Amino acid sequence: MNKQDNAQAGPAGHLEVIPLGGMGEIGKNMFAYRYDDEIMVVDGGLAFPDSLQPGVDLIIPRIDYLQQNAALIQGWVLTHGHEDHIGGLPYILPRLPRVPTYGAKLTLGLVREKLNEYGVGEADTDLREVTAGTTVRIGKHFVVEFVRMTHSIPDNFGYILHTPVGQVVHTGDFKLDEHPTDGQPSDLARLERAGDSGVLLLISDSTNAERPGTTTSEAEVARNMEALIAQCRGRVFVSTFASQVHRLQNIVQIAERLGRRVVIEGRSMVKYAQIAEQLGYMQFKEPLLASEDIGDLQDSQVLFLCTGSQGQPMSVLSRLALGTHAKIALRRGDSVVLSSNPIPGNEEAVNLVVNKLYEIGVDVYYPPTYRIHASGHGSQDELLQVLQLTRPKYFLPWHGEPRHQINHARIAQTIPQPPQRTLVAKNGDVVRLMENEFRVTGTVPAGAVYVDGLGVGDIGDDIMLERLGMSQEGVLVVTALLHPTPHVDLVSRGFVKSNRELDGQIRKVALDALEAGLRDKKRPEDLRDDLYGSVRRFVRKATGRNPVLIPLLVD
Amino acid sequence: MNKQDNAQAGPAGHLEVIPLGGMGEIGKNMFAYRYDDEIMVVDGGLAFPDSLQPGVDLIIPRIDYLQQNAALIQGWVLTHGHEDHIGGLPYILPRLPRVPTYGAKLTLGLVREKLNEYGVGEADTDLREVTAGTTVRIGKHFVVEFVRMTHSIPDNFGYILHTPVGQVVHTGDFKLDEHPTDGQPSDLARLERAGDSGVLLLISDSTNAERPGTTTSEAEVARNMEALIAQCRGRVFVSTFASQVHRLQNIVQIAERLGRRVVIEGRSMVKYAQIAEQLGYMQFKEPLLASEDIGDLQDSQVLFLCTGSQGQPMSVLSRLALGTHAKIALRRGDSVVLSSNPIPGNEEAVNLVVNKLYEIGVDVYYPPTYRIHASGHGSQDELLQVLQLTRPKYFLPWHGEPRHQINHARIAQTIPQPPQRTLVAKNGDVVRLMENEFRVTGTVPAGAVYVDGLGVGDIGDDIMLERLGMSQEGVLVVTALLHPTPHVDLVSRGFVKSNRELDGQIRKVALDALEAGLRDKKRPEDLRDDLYGSVRRFVRKATGRNPVLIPLLVD
Repeated sequence: MNKQDNAQAGPAGHLEVIPLGGMGEIGKNMFAYRYDDEIMVVDGGLAFPDSLQPGVDLIIPRIDYLQQNAALIQGWVLTHGHEDHIGGLPYILPRLPRVPTYGAKLTLGLVREKLNEYGVGEADTDLREVTAGTTVRIGKHFVVEFVRMTHSIPDNFGYILHTPVGQVVHTGDFKLDEHPTDGQPSDLARLERAGDSGVLLLISDSTNAERPGTTTSEAEVARNMEALIAQCRGRVFVSTFASQVHRLQNIVQIAERLGRRVVIEGRSMVKYAQIAEQLGYMQFKEPLLASEDIGDLQDSQVLFLCTGSQGQPMSVLSRLALGTHAKIALRRGDSVVLSSNPIPGNEEAVNLVVNKLYEIGVDVYYPPTYRIHASGHGSQDELLQVLQLTRPKYFLPWHGEPRHQINHARIAQTIPQPPQRTLVAKNGDVVRLMENEFRVTGTVPAGAVYVDGLGVGDIGDDIMLERLGMSQEGVLVVTALLHPTPHVDLVSRGFVKSNRELDGQIRKVALDALEAGLRDKKRPEDLRDDLYGSVRRFVRKATGRNPVLIPLLVD
Repeated sequence: MNKQDNAQAGPAGHLEVIPLGGMGEIGKNMFAYRYDDEIMVVDGGLAFPDSLQPGVDLIIPRIDYLQQNAALIQGWVLTHGHEDHIGGLPYILPRLPRVPTYGAKLTLGLVREKLNEYGVGEADTDLREVTAGTTVRIGKHFVVEFVRMTHSIPDNFGYILHTPVGQVVHTGDFKLDEHPTDGQPSDLARLERAGDSGVLLLISDSTNAERPGTTTSEAEVARNMEALIAQCRGRVFVSTFASQVHRLQNIVQIAERLGRRVVIEGRSMVKYAQIAEQLGYMQFKEPLLASEDIGDLQDSQVLFLCTGSQGQPMSVLSRLALGTHAKIALRRGDSVVLSSNPIPGNEEAVNLVVNKLYEIGVDVYYPPTYRIHASGHGSQDELLQVLQLTRPKYFLPWHGEPRHQINHARIAQTIPQPPQRTLVAKNGDVVRLMENEFRVTGTVPAGAVYVDGLGVGDIGDDIMLERLGMSQEGVLVVTALLHPTPHVDLVSRGFVKSNRELDGQIRKVALDALEAGLRDKKRPEDLRDDLYGSVRRFVRKATGRNPVLIPLLVD
């Protein structure tokens, strides 16, 4: 089948499930469902760059498919307020038609804040608040029922999608914590009823498919945190994910019980706490302080909540560790509590901060020595339980890299009635779903759009390769003035320490190439090629290096 | 005290312990001991660059102190054959006098191979083989007794250094595996006797000071490997550290028992296996094959031993995973066994390889799901045991970052007779040791020498900063021709996709700055500054980016 045909025409009588992000990766989650000439979209997240994407601020999904079929989009569903589910919306929403966009109160509060920050007007969006159990119709063909699932942010949804071909259950991000902070565990009864009435397709969170057992409860994290902080005598600094509103609430309550006032530091921490309080997700007996307001509170009477659990260079914790914070200096007797694990890719940055804290002489507490963090994603036993409750005919392991998807697929094979078919899909796959059909029938454009500075999509993989090349070997600019007598100048960055002897040799090689070319009356393009080739060969031989070489001919 | 005085004069009557590498870091281990006018050196390792050291091949310790005091060096001691203990020797040995250099058979075999590879002649060194229990005198003041300690390479030593001020016990890298492959566990009896006769200073391996319990035995790893490989039906590919000679031997024996011929692939794997066999550390019933020699062996009759357990891009396993290996293609039914953990910093590279393997459809086995790797370094219970056996008066936690050193120091405080003093030292610290004195009295130059291409020490932190800058934002070269009428050209790498409108705007800004400067008859330096400033401001405003800007004035 021709890709374009597929994207444009959208054959009738079957559902198309089209992951645009988050399938085969962890990050930038986005889904499109299409039935006939109607499309429903789920989430619009961002991802953070890895080491092969230097200088990129963030990454959003390609939305070519949605732009090409903009008129078909009937509605949008948001599962929860994490960056990897809503962080791309300020870039994505303005490029697509205004359609009803459903999400929970906290989710929409965070989206509003974000759109506002990026200057996207409220009038350009149509945000509609829903609660767990709400059912909404989107277009003629889609009925979406929001299901409460526990995660590391409040107001998190999975959903049941009722379609003409059958029921699709999408867990969203989830864990089955039996003791969540808000006392509202995942609605397993609803998943079981869905299973009883027949689930055609299950789409489920694969993040922790390699972890045996059950993910630690948030209640246990809170107990361990309280026991730990109770024995700290000096100031206590706690860092965690700012979006972990339940944990922030627990920490505030722990502080209240231990007679410590909470001081909050760091832009994103302040922002989340404000939104969560305004919308009723956090309660404080006494207002949170800024560090200026500590007054004569003693060390044992304060607890700082601060950003930086991922070692981000400009965060509060990093500046404290490096001694560059404008208002606070750590000292012996302080305790720093990292209620977090490094996200893959951040290990080195977190390790740097931890070592700097040790060097200052503060006491540092972190997992796994202290069980003071829990993942927001269910482990193998929880994945198994959802599979057993829903007993899907088809299965799409999602929210994971291939290793997570494939291990999740294996778990599915262990239940009494395993799925008839499991697909390990990729972003852009068009998965056709019917009563008796479940397969990839084509692809739509999918992949990464780099956001860097003010630019969206104006850097690509070729630019990445140039950056990586320069980071490895530096750059060497050879300027050749062609008249009246040839003359060569060198400028380099990131190459080697300036070295008169080497410079002289390179200039001579360049000059020889130029003079030979000029004698032969070569054209400027050929002169430049000669210059490039001879300098490159010489530099490689003389230094063992291969800098990015820029020859400039001036005449 | 003046640094130079300290380095040159070397006061009498006390020992100076001078870590030149490996103290406050994991990597490039090197020690100097000085008593009066005699110096003894231990090891000379390398480290691998982290993400802030792009393009660096490897890192060796600064040896300024040894070069300045070259005439005082009496001898050299090598603890074992790992890169972080001997990898710097090809760069270091030729720069210092030829002195007796003691090491075990395997260690010296690996050193010879390495020196040979770098073109350092045998005559320039004085390598002397010793065994566990050997005692050698170095200079007038040092008597070194080699002590067998278990590690992840055979022939590993700690040592007891007898000096005029007392006994120093240095564990070297160690674990207390009770069931090592060669049947020769660490010589704890000797450590205990040292303790009984009084240990003035213990220097001990801190690598796993944060890990509770005991490090897994190599025997258990072998059992688990055998159980795993026994249930594989197709081809089996095992990757591990090439220097893990005991594990290689175990894998060969497992293959023999399971009726599989061993095929060895990858330069370093072949090299270690050859040296180990030549020196008697590995035995094979049948010769190891190359992949060309497989002939008509069936899939169930071969086991490939290959490089790449750290995700190194040019390794055999990476090429297999990416489908770029010239001779072998993985297929469904194959099993890949990673008998290793990612070294910090290699997580992303290993994850990439693992995901690619899953995508091919092979079965992939790795820790922690499978217990098929063990660290070479002892965990908390083992560190405790060594402290209890030696009961040192003073303690220097070594081979670790501050987090490891400080946790090791805490462990030392838990024994019945804790050390009177523990120092958390840094590279370059001059630690003065006497019967009743143990403190840092000064520093000598220490730090990193970058080896990049053919250059040693010709790139420094300034070059690193330039490389990091270009990797984040790219480079923009602005060439301005000053006469007859000013003209400006732009070339960029790693900046943004070429964009005629933006180029035109930048050229105009540059030209305006130039023409204004020329009207005011400014000097070329000032013209360049104007050009730089105006282009930089404009680019930052227009793009939100800050490329490395190179202004070139040509006249």
